[in-house]
Amino acid sequence: MIEDYWVSVLGIVAAALVTSSFLPQIIRGYRTKKLGDVSYWLMTMICVGMSLWIVYGMVKHDFVIIGANVSTIILNVVLLIMKRKYAN
Amino acid sequence: MIEDYWVSVLGIVAAALVTSSFLPQIIRGYRTKKLGDVSYWLMTMICVGMSLWIVYGMVKHDFVIIGANVSTIILNVVLLIMKRKYAN
Repeated sequence: MIEDYWVSVLGIVAAALVTSSFLPQIIRGYRTKKLGDVSYWLMTMICVGMSLWIVYGMVKHDFVIIGANVSTIILNVVLLIMKRKYAN
Repeated sequence: MIEDYWVSVLGIVAAALVTSSFLPQIIRGYRTKKLGDVSYWLMTMICVGMSLWIVYGMVKHDFVIIGANVSTIILNVVLLIMKRKYAN
C-alpha cells in the first residue's frame, strides 16, 4: 500500500533526525573539548532505554527501530568516552 | 495475548527511560545554572524529529509513541528555555 510506504518513510526520517541530533553535540564537544555541562545520566539512561528499544524492535521485526537505536547508542557511547577524556 | 502485553510493557519502559533521561540534565542545569556545553542543535533536532514521531504515532494509533514523544519534547523545550536564560 502506498500509504504504508509513506508511514515508513515518516518513521525513517523521524528516527534519522533524532539519531543525528547527537552529531552536533559530538562536534561541539570535539571543538570546545568541553562536555562538563552534559549529564552522564542523560547519556547512560538513553543507552539503557534504547537497548530496550532494540529488544522491542527485534520482537516486532522492525528494522527501523533497531537501526535507529543502535546508531543512537553508538553516538552516545562516543559522547560518554569524550566526556570522560575531557574531564581529565 | 500475554506476549503482546509484555511487548507493550517493554516499549513503555523503554520509552519512559529515554524520556526521563532528560530529567537529570534539567536538574544538573538547574543546580549549576550552566548549560553552555549542551548543543542547541541537539535539543532542536530532537524536538523536530520527535514531532515527526508524534505524527507517526497518530497515523499508527500508537499512544505509547505519542505520549513518550510529547513528554520528551516538553523536557527539551524546558532545557532550551533554561539554556537561553542561563546564557544571559
